[in-house]
Amino acid sequence: MNKSFFIVIDGIDGSGTTTHCKLLLDWLKQKRDVFLTEEPSTNEIGNLIKKFLKTALPAAVDALLFAADRVLHTIEIKKALEEGKIVISDRYIESSTCYQGVELDEEWIITLNKFAIFPDLTIILDINPEIGLKRKDDTSAKFENIPFLTKVRELFLKRAKKMKYPVINTSKPIEEVQTEIRNHVKSLIKI
Amino acid sequence: MNKSFFIVIDGIDGSGTTTHCKLLLDWLKQKRDVFLTEEPSTNEIGNLIKKFLKTALPAAVDALLFAADRVLHTIEIKKALEEGKIVISDRYIESSTCYQGVELDEEWIITLNKFAIFPDLTIILDINPEIGLKRKDDTSAKFENIPFLTKVRELFLKRAKKMKYPVINTSKPIEEVQTEIRNHVKSLIKI
Repeated sequence: MNKSFFIVIDGIDGSGTTTHCKLLLDWLKQKRDVFLTEEPSTNEIGNLIKKFLKTALPAAVDALLFAADRVLHTIEIKKALEEGKIVISDRYIESSTCYQGVELDEEWIITLNKFAIFPDLTIILDINPEIGLKRKDDTSAKFENIPFLTKVRELFLKRAKKMKYPVINTSKPIEEVQTEIRNHVKSLIKI
Repeated sequence: MNKSFFIVIDGIDGSGTTTHCKLLLDWLKQKRDVFLTEEPSTNEIGNLIKKFLKTALPAAVDALLFAADRVLHTIEIKKALEEGKIVISDRYIESSTCYQGVELDEEWIITLNKFAIFPDLTIILDINPEIGLKRKDDTSAKFENIPFLTKVRELFLKRAKKMKYPVINTSKPIEEVQTEIRNHVKSLIKI
């Protein structure tokens, strides 16, 4: 049985997490069973979070809802890993520490997420929020404004430094960024 | 302006929290402005929790959802208190520590609820679960079974001892129980 592996691609809105997760899937699925997933997840809590993306709420509510969603999401991820799959998640716990971390204590957010698991590889995609938001068709969600995303970006870079996550600047061409992502994956597992 | 006061009546299913909150309201509203409320609350998170009452979920999901609901509920409660009202809540944080506490660490549950406020008076209604469940028309929710409620009851009694909450056995006649509740209220505020 192939060794399972859990990859997270995280970063601010417009950094390209969704695009790069899909490109990573295209490459990996030629060689291995892959489970591509995302947060907010597709269960009922994830759906409520998506509904709330345009509703101003206390950050604690967002943090608790994302953590609740992540308990269920983590069960799905563990199942896929037990089946020997490679799991790619478009966002995971670092989206909580960085988005809700703008207003809340990092340690509290981590405590809420005690049932989350450590990914084998978390890659942070980094972009200037002004460039990132220009890439998006719809920027009406509550998090999608430059002053807020500037703070979230700082937290992503701070967490990356602390946790030794690779950071890739995504103002470069997509192919170049994806090659870097694949190189990080290849450095850790035999594909 | 009248002094605000926050009363919680909590206890296992069938202990009579809803009945006694309403009777307490009937008495208090003759003299003061009262805001009667309940958990799960009536917002969208509360509605999702109610929908999940018949869905087996990891206790952590329930604990996180109840805590998220309680952040919003606490804002409503604080608003009513700021208006000088007496607030009566049918259940509050002790339902989380005792229901989800059957499977989860009490301290973790309390940490999730760091944005909750301390009621001025929490009264625990106590009943043998076999008697309590017989009082209910619908006992199809996931928590409504005797072995589980027996454990929840033990936790309510343990928390009451630790936090010095009055405990009232509700196998007595309703009028007698309600008189005891009113006496506790009268001992703390001028009505």
